[in-house]
Amino acid sequence: MKYPSYLKKTTEKTTNYSNRGMNLEEDINVTNDYYLQNNIAVIHKKPTPISVHKVHYPNRLDAVITKAYYKTKSTTDYNGVYKGFYIDFEVKETKNKTSFPKRNIQNHQIKHMMKVYDHGGISFIIVQFSLLDEVYLITIDKFITKYNEKSSSISIDYFKKNGYLIDKKYMPRINYLSIVDILIEKD
Amino acid sequence: MKYPSYLKKTTEKTTNYSNRGMNLEEDINVTNDYYLQNNIAVIHKKPTPISVHKVHYPNRLDAVITKAYYKTKSTTDYNGVYKGFYIDFEVKETKNKTSFPKRNIQNHQIKHMMKVYDHGGISFIIVQFSLLDEVYLITIDKFITKYNEKSSSISIDYFKKNGYLIDKKYMPRINYLSIVDILIEKD
Repeated sequence: MKYPSYLKKTTEKTTNYSNRGMNLEEDINVTNDYYLQNNIAVIHKKPTPISVHKVHYPNRLDAVITKAYYKTKSTTDYNGVYKGFYIDFEVKETKNKTSFPKRNIQNHQIKHMMKVYDHGGISFIIVQFSLLDEVYLITIDKFITKYNEKSSSISIDYFKKNGYLIDKKYMPRINYLSIVDILIEKD
Repeated sequence: MKYPSYLKKTTEKTTNYSNRGMNLEEDINVTNDYYLQNNIAVIHKKPTPISVHKVHYPNRLDAVITKAYYKTKSTTDYNGVYKGFYIDFEVKETKNKTSFPKRNIQNHQIKHMMKVYDHGGISFIIVQFSLLDEVYLITIDKFITKYNEKSSSISIDYFKKNGYLIDKKYMPRINYLSIVDILIEKD
């Protein structure tokens, strides 16, 4: 059966909305809320850095920003504390089925994560291969080996061998701290 | 000698600018840069949370935010990692000479810091009594005792007895990690 294009578009949107896996960031935020509410960990998403240029004050309390620009993130999106450990990570999605394009992550973010690693923090990247509905956690020390090679992407096989597949559940949706537990034990 | 008011204003501004101690946040940012550059710790100021309502795209790369509002901070301003420890703190100034008004710090920030403490992080408040040019570090577990009492402020004597005076230097300007070292050793 053929739908007119505008109907098809609506159907696609609905599908994407119900398949929560399409939005990894939202899944991670819900997971972090779960960790916080259940007293498991204190991990928050950092606000997006914005440089404010003009502010209008109609009165003392209601400031309206009327001109501002997005700034480049200097660190990662998420950090916090779990079992006394400093946790710091970045979250990325790709629609690629066989590899993760390196351009998806910025060089200064990799540098930041390596610094965290050097200072005894636990730092990693959570990568979702959205069309496969597979989510991997890979520590920054494993990631950087491939990142420093010349190729423009990292194969999914590398994630399978050097990272950890995270099972998706109802709640917590992306239980990445179960992998962090493995990392802590190995150490 | 009496100056006309506009001249006086200029003089005051110049004085404030040269007395860097008047801006504690700037001092802390410079200190954190020093820690980062000298490979001592990775501690950053979180961006101010802003809720974006309208964005104008003159072209694909240059997004201009044309309507946005400041949001309430849900956590603290600073966090990061030092010697493997999770560090989380808030920075406050007062012009009061004898006490710190409790209204200067928000209740949900105190709650956040206590959660960090419960999960094994090191959490504290750095308070500057600007007119005395004295900066104290007080851990959240000591701060909350007085915070939960009925009075509207906490006397400077409480900071002297239960906190740590931080010596100001040229560089690092506010060496609060020297106090964190004492906290780590005591633990």
